[in-house]
Amino acid sequence: MAQKPVIPKGTRDFNPTEVAKRHYITDVIKQQFKQFGFQPIETPSFENSDTLMGKYGEEGDRLIFKILNSGDYLSKSNKEALKNEDSNLLTSSISEKALRYDLTVPFARYVVQHQNDIDFPFKRYQIQPVWRADRPQKGRFREFYQCDADVVGSNSLWQEVEFIQLYDNVFSALKLEGVTIKINNRKILSGIAEVIGASDKLIDFTVALDKLDKIGEAKVKEEMLSKGISEEGISKLQPLFTLAGDFGAQIESLKSILSTSEEGLKGIEELEFVNNAILELGLKTANLQLDVTLARGLNYYTGAIFEVSAPKGVSMGSIGGGGRYDDLTGIFGLNNVSGIGISFGLDRIYLVLEELNLFPETVLDTTKVLFINFGDSEALYAMKAIKRLRSKHINAELYPDNAKMKKQMNYANKRNLPFVVLVGEEEMKASTYTLKNMIEGSQESLNLEQLVDALK
Amino acid sequence: MAQKPVIPKGTRDFNPTEVAKRHYITDVIKQQFKQFGFQPIETPSFENSDTLMGKYGEEGDRLIFKILNSGDYLSKSNKEALKNEDSNLLTSSISEKALRYDLTVPFARYVVQHQNDIDFPFKRYQIQPVWRADRPQKGRFREFYQCDADVVGSNSLWQEVEFIQLYDNVFSALKLEGVTIKINNRKILSGIAEVIGASDKLIDFTVALDKLDKIGEAKVKEEMLSKGISEEGISKLQPLFTLAGDFGAQIESLKSILSTSEEGLKGIEELEFVNNAILELGLKTANLQLDVTLARGLNYYTGAIFEVSAPKGVSMGSIGGGGRYDDLTGIFGLNNVSGIGISFGLDRIYLVLEELNLFPETVLDTTKVLFINFGDSEALYAMKAIKRLRSKHINAELYPDNAKMKKQMNYANKRNLPFVVLVGEEEMKASTYTLKNMIEGSQESLNLEQLVDALK
Repeated sequence: MAQKPVIPKGTRDFNPTEVAKRHYITDVIKQQFKQFGFQPIETPSFENSDTLMGKYGEEGDRLIFKILNSGDYLSKSNKEALKNEDSNLLTSSISEKALRYDLTVPFARYVVQHQNDIDFPFKRYQIQPVWRADRPQKGRFREFYQCDADVVGSNSLWQEVEFIQLYDNVFSALKLEGVTIKINNRKILSGIAEVIGASDKLIDFTVALDKLDKIGEAKVKEEMLSKGISEEGISKLQPLFTLAGDFGAQIESLKSILSTSEEGLKGIEELEFVNNAILELGLKTANLQLDVTLARGLNYYTGAIFEVSAPKGVSMGSIGGGGRYDDLTGIFGLNNVSGIGISFGLDRIYLVLEELNLFPETVLDTTKVLFINFGDSEALYAMKAIKRLRSKHINAELYPDNAKMKKQMNYANKRNLPFVVLVGEEEMKASTYTLKNMIEGSQESLNLEQLVDALK
Repeated sequence: MAQKPVIPKGTRDFNPTEVAKRHYITDVIKQQFKQFGFQPIETPSFENSDTLMGKYGEEGDRLIFKILNSGDYLSKSNKEALKNEDSNLLTSSISEKALRYDLTVPFARYVVQHQNDIDFPFKRYQIQPVWRADRPQKGRFREFYQCDADVVGSNSLWQEVEFIQLYDNVFSALKLEGVTIKINNRKILSGIAEVIGASDKLIDFTVALDKLDKIGEAKVKEEMLSKGISEEGISKLQPLFTLAGDFGAQIESLKSILSTSEEGLKGIEELEFVNNAILELGLKTANLQLDVTLARGLNYYTGAIFEVSAPKGVSMGSIGGGGRYDDLTGIFGLNNVSGIGISFGLDRIYLVLEELNLFPETVLDTTKVLFINFGDSEALYAMKAIKRLRSKHINAELYPDNAKMKKQMNYANKRNLPFVVLVGEEEMKASTYTLKNMIEGSQESLNLEQLVDALK
């Protein structure tokens, strides 16, 4: 009885068209990464569990895929846990390795492990899959690629300027014009929390503020109130809800709100530096926007926070994000190394390019010409021409079997091949090739050099 | 207390140089795959366990990495196994998924699952990592990449001819000249076993014969004898041990040995077809050699068997291999689909190219020019030039911090960057850039367009 061929839920097969389109996106990203001086690294798919566990919070720990130890793993297991059937307690005694959950923690581990071989500031990019035992749903997978670029070892604000230009360059190169790069700064959020007397409730405050777009002003205030932020504090926030104008005008409003917070003013200074540089340098097709409600993984970020949204009219969450973090490598014993990084959301970018029909037609790069097979001597004659075409970098193949002509032509049609070549006895005698254009239906008789020229 | 940053044994980090070199190899392979009409697919890193288990023999099952179920996995576990601490029995009740062990079984699963969307013959390539819980040792890893190309849905011998040409093209493009492509055919091995009355001992017979190179004629005979092959049978093998001459001469000797075996003669016919076609078409830099001792994973192969060895003088095992298999997809319910495929040994090819110094110098593709940072206004001036250079596809970057000149120059030196640009007040006033050639030590003053031209 044959097995039914299925794949685990939350995972995907990619067919040739999908692979080609995904590689088109990552190739563009890679090219830009290199242009900005980033270098590629790759880390193992699984890490020792203690490298990953405890780095993503309790929920994260739960979502990490653990690998069962090999051999008689129960012999060294926690007997107490075994007896009590305590899965949680048993795990660490029967599983030493786990699949990578993101690229950031492995990167931090890499930097510390190889610190003596690295020239800082170290600009690295990494494009590899990660795994999460999340409940699969539309657009959320258990295996997906992350595309990250980070710099560690410099706290220069020029990095923030570089990453904004990098986003602009990548999306412009993908012809995805008009994306919005939103920027905020954790110091602004801390400053506001300080001003409204809610420094101890920074997370609650930012989580609520982050929802402004979705639930509106009234509900945000309600949530803040329910979290114990005072009415008086919330009233001081009023200017935030009505921040208007361009980047510069918003900065001015923030300055008045934050006039008493040293940290807040530092955040403003940083944002101004970045904005001024971008105004001087200009962006190709993206827009830079200040968004004081932007928080993302706040625990993580210490300075700039980025998020990129698709052009107006495309309903899609963020297609990229990132920010500055200090001391990421501290968990592995290397302190005082400031870092900043951004990420590209490959799956979502794919969906946006598909929706807007932005994949180039040439993306598939498939076979250009199929030689019809009329038997072994004709096939050998064909193979000689195929060899010549390939030496000229033309993708060419022979239909492997001497099947019915109709079957072979159907195959060429289904695969959307632009040309076929027919060679029978007559062509062999005359040393010619009959080239058929599958789109126009026309055909012509050519010698080998003419054939090469026609297909180049 | 900080954790010590280490990776699991048998896994590897790849630094920028290693990634660049690995991608150089896979890019060459991919380009040739495409030229021959192969299309890429990708499958998930983990499959349902029952897709993989039982496909690689008992040893294979043991070496498959299993993924622990999420949540309270013990609640649905086999209580009997739990009580008896029977690891073997417990596994399938606490682990439903497993990491891919090779690319062939997932490919078979893919073909059957998507058979209605595939146009046969289906030529696919796949370059992805696989995982094996093998004991790590020099050159053997627990995570490594496989690079496979297969065709399913045709039993034409032109495929064998194509794969030999593909090997020749890839290794020629890598400048690895003089590899030997060894070919055999399972039907020859079956035929010989039949002739010597050892058809029921085919595996024992081929395992022993496969060792001829390593242990010599006498020990091979000894082993065959110990496996129950008769003295009389072994004596009939004598011509095998002294097969001499070119492909054609060896074929003639085999014909006399195999004259009474229909299957053996069929194998000879197939080999002759392939050899004649290759003689007509010619190879660029590889040699095709008949090797009747070649067996590889014999259970698997039904026709041609391939193995590629590095050029003479390089001590390295096989750097590629493959063969024809019938009915691979039968395990998933799709019968009578003949297939043939080959594989490239990425890690070994890497070592050979390294040993022979065959990686091109341009492989690194790093930053071409670093702008020294003398402060924010100079940096802004520099960034404008950098932006222009990048628009001309020149990899350029700014040293992010206004650090001491010596530190910045050291950084450029350590990273082997070929050029730096110095811009101070003077240059800004004159709208020039001082370009320093880090190899020759020379420097010159240029305007922006001259700078672009000099770095192109």
